[in-house]
Amino acid sequence: MHNIVKSSCILSGDAFKKSDYFCSMLEDKNPQRTSLEELGEFGLIDHLTKHFEIKHKSTVKGIGDDAAVLSSRSKQIVVTTDLLIEHVHFDLSYVPLKHLGYKSVMVNLSDVYAMNAQATQITISIAVSNRFPLEAIEELYSGIDTAARTYGIDVIGGDTTSSTTGLIISITAIGEVNEEDVVYRNGAQPNDLLVVTGDIGAAYMGLQVLEREKEVFKVNPGNQPDLEPYTYIIERQLKPEARKDIIELLQKLEVKPTSMIDISDGLSSEIIHLCKQSNVGVELYENKIPLDPQVISTCEEFNVDSTTIALNGGEDYELLMTISQEDFPKIKANPDLTVIGFITDKDRGMHLITRGEQAIPIIAKGWNAMKNEE
Amino acid sequence: MHNIVKSSCILSGDAFKKSDYFCSMLEDKNPQRTSLEELGEFGLIDHLTKHFEIKHKSTVKGIGDDAAVLSSRSKQIVVTTDLLIEHVHFDLSYVPLKHLGYKSVMVNLSDVYAMNAQATQITISIAVSNRFPLEAIEELYSGIDTAARTYGIDVIGGDTTSSTTGLIISITAIGEVNEEDVVYRNGAQPNDLLVVTGDIGAAYMGLQVLEREKEVFKVNPGNQPDLEPYTYIIERQLKPEARKDIIELLQKLEVKPTSMIDISDGLSSEIIHLCKQSNVGVELYENKIPLDPQVISTCEEFNVDSTTIALNGGEDYELLMTISQEDFPKIKANPDLTVIGFITDKDRGMHLITRGEQAIPIIAKGWNAMKNEE
Repeated sequence: MHNIVKSSCILSGDAFKKSDYFCSMLEDKNPQRTSLEELGEFGLIDHLTKHFEIKHKSTVKGIGDDAAVLSSRSKQIVVTTDLLIEHVHFDLSYVPLKHLGYKSVMVNLSDVYAMNAQATQITISIAVSNRFPLEAIEELYSGIDTAARTYGIDVIGGDTTSSTTGLIISITAIGEVNEEDVVYRNGAQPNDLLVVTGDIGAAYMGLQVLEREKEVFKVNPGNQPDLEPYTYIIERQLKPEARKDIIELLQKLEVKPTSMIDISDGLSSEIIHLCKQSNVGVELYENKIPLDPQVISTCEEFNVDSTTIALNGGEDYELLMTISQEDFPKIKANPDLTVIGFITDKDRGMHLITRGEQAIPIIAKGWNAMKNEE
Repeated sequence: MHNIVKSSCILSGDAFKKSDYFCSMLEDKNPQRTSLEELGEFGLIDHLTKHFEIKHKSTVKGIGDDAAVLSSRSKQIVVTTDLLIEHVHFDLSYVPLKHLGYKSVMVNLSDVYAMNAQATQITISIAVSNRFPLEAIEELYSGIDTAARTYGIDVIGGDTTSSTTGLIISITAIGEVNEEDVVYRNGAQPNDLLVVTGDIGAAYMGLQVLEREKEVFKVNPGNQPDLEPYTYIIERQLKPEARKDIIELLQKLEVKPTSMIDISDGLSSEIIHLCKQSNVGVELYENKIPLDPQVISTCEEFNVDSTTIALNGGEDYELLMTISQEDFPKIKANPDLTVIGFITDKDRGMHLITRGEQAIPIIAKGWNAMKNEE
């Protein structure tokens, strides 16, 4: 695979070698090309899955039978699934396959953590066209494997097939949680605090930078982009992390959120989900929304409003939750948790309170997959 | 959707209206076309999923949160997943969308039953391009819904997104089973009997007939094919049934197979899987392989060997199992269960014993998705 992002490495992350982040668009990183026909379907599955280790006691049987077998006698099980399609959800001209594998897992784990559950297993299905050599699929699986190891997940099954066009990845993630610990979207109560983890808007701005560089590359393939000022936002786009740490933190702090959702489509879209399902209203404070300085500077450079980006950008994979006010002292000092608003009665509606103290109705302009195509 | 198969209805099946089976290629069955953009992603998900009922006590939370929540305290859980891609796994010129939805569920349930488990839940992810109007997706979901109702399955989640080309369906099926009842592929013992359910080869020959009619149609669109002689084999291709009944039958007969697998890729391929994982050999008797008379007559018409089709055809979704000889009296009189061979020591190898009493090594020529494309 060729990659647009051509630069000395500027991204951190122990799980990946520096050279993995940016490979040259001109230089072929994978001179060895083993065609998928040589292996056949079963050969490919064996080849790709033989390295996956089983870590959880609850995994009775992983890959290799008609179905995986799990055992989870004392806990509830959560199940979530996502489908990622080339040209719709990712562009291989600037997304390295290893990162794509890693991110595909994160997208699903994020949904498990949003239930206040621990992720335990995943299944991976991929469809690839013959334009991908084996080495490319190995890169993808290497990212999946890194994600599984880092997050302590067993890969327990999947399907590998051919596609007539691009790459398709379907992942189902499974987790477990004590019955009394599950957090749904529908438990927010008036006067609860609205809390977000980390910072938001960065993944979207990272994508804007990558898209811009792709256009520049088309016109001038010899151009060497300087991505140094965008390190953080590009990493947020290419290698997001699901917030397993937050689930552990909440447990340690003895805080059970009243409702929780992961931020995949954008803050405003997720706030609307929480409020509608909980039958409540909300006041969101513009000046409280946590933004990384790189988001602010890149928004200025692109001449877009950073609040709009934070509200509608998407792909942050942070957690949005509501907590009871009596839990506020427990989270107060924590840099990972920011109070950005509070829950009201439903009839007060859903509003953004701007820096100028105007109340603007919150509407969902989140990324809508249905509009993104020809 | 237009459909090649233009005929009076000749297929049975209470779950489907007769007119659903064959719709004309010339006549548009769906004059109403609601574009997917009008609904948006969340609107589409709501619209498609609002009718799904929850039947199982183990489904604590279905569609509508970040993940579904299941509870299954006394049983083990089985999980399996499959990816179906347009132009690779199905051809919409002769597969009605309702049937495709139904079959997609069957393909997955079959894997659950092959573990001797009861299927309880599924997640459905689909990717569609804008060439599909809402009404087409409704047809697909109507088949999924019919399958779920008929087999007593809860639809608990999924993902709906856009595709730049064709239709993609990813289903994950979940089932439950008492720990002592799980049947793996690796338990076959020398002297066990090799048993197959139903009859095989029909789905493949049904596909050959449909493919032939498609070619005829291209040359002469006015031609009205007579599909009466192929009713059974076409139904086996378009609307297979997973063998839930066999799992119930085995329980009633108090027979626990020593190993089991579902027949998706062809009898020879599945026999090889069972024998390799169980570390045994096999003798398979050609004259015992159950074939429907329509398979035999259609094979004659197409001038192909019916044993070759039975061994390599695929998509039968029958169950292949081994049982201890002492269980033979319990299954002897049952028309659904046919003894087709017996298990030997590994060093005796895997052989087909022909009608002429020749021993021919069994090799996998099963349908291989990796070879089926440009």
